Amino acid sequence: MRILGLDPSLSSTGWGVIEVENNRLKYVADGFIKTDPKMPLPERLAIIHKTLNQVIETYRPDEAAIEQVFLNENPTSTIKLGMARGVVIMAPALFDIPVTEYEPTKVKKALVGVGRAEKSQVETMVKVLLPGCKPKNNDSSDALAMAICHFHMRGSYQGR
Amino acid sequence: MRILGLDPSLSSTGWGVIEVENNRLKYVADGFIKTDPKMPLPERLAIIHKTLNQVIETYRPDEAAIEQVFLNENPTSTIKLGMARGVVIMAPALFDIPVTEYEPTKVKKALVGVGRAEKSQVETMVKVLLPGCKPKNNDSSDALAMAICHFHMRGSYQGR
Repeated sequence: MRILGLDPSLSSTGWGVIEVENNRLKYVADGFIKTDPKMPLPERLAIIHKTLNQVIETYRPDEAAIEQVFLNENPTSTIKLGMARGVVIMAPALFDIPVTEYEPTKVKKALVGVGRAEKSQVETMVKVLLPGCKPKNNDSSDALAMAICHFHMRGSYQGR
Repeated sequence: MRILGLDPSLSSTGWGVIEVENNRLKYVADGFIKTDPKMPLPERLAIIHKTLNQVIETYRPDEAAIEQVFLNENPTSTIKLGMARGVVIMAPALFDIPVTEYEPTKVKKALVGVGRAEKSQVETMVKVLLPGCKPKNNDSSDALAMAICHFHMRGSYQGR
């Protein structure tokens, strides 16, 4: 089974794909979608949409996971993040792939063991849990962490 | 030239198409996209996306207009509106149709003459300016108002 992890933002959306085989994790691919702040907003969203479609068509994940939203104090930032998030969370649904949302603290706890772990600790665990994987950047590392978290939570939901 | 007006929301996104011929307005079509609050969020966004794609393929607008965002005091509402808005504002961009954003007060001013007009006054003016048009509901009436506003503002930008 393949899991797609997603870390949405307007400037750089991270994505990561892992494979689960006999309850073991394997790294498949990761990347990030950068958009130019000088471009009109609708075009930036269209780039995120088209690139994610290509990622899903290429790697054919069975399930997807996304971080539950981080509410910014600044409403303008919140609405911008919301717009990117809407486009990102919709992408798997267009392929009938179910998407599960996880709180940031749950993702950290699933990987590091504590909900208040540092970003660097999460990245270290991503590398440990996915041997041979060198995440492209912070955003794709966070996306891979999301996918790993989904593997763990998914198991616990099924009573494993 | 055809203009598509858009009034995004997660529960009911309004859309309206008008035609401009020899500087006169003609009603073409309007509608709204309702989504079931009980459905998963990604699927609701996918319905909005697919329906808007159909609307654009059917009516082939040349330009699009959308209301500038209304920032809700409740951050959870803001993020939800943001997600719907992201999907809606992206739709024309996928067809290389330019989208212009207008402040709500500008839309009201363009139609009624004052920025603080009532919703009912806007609807009345939509019916006056588009003879024979009976908007399907408030959301599609707002979307038609947006399209009419774009016609006016577009003209003024071009120095007419």
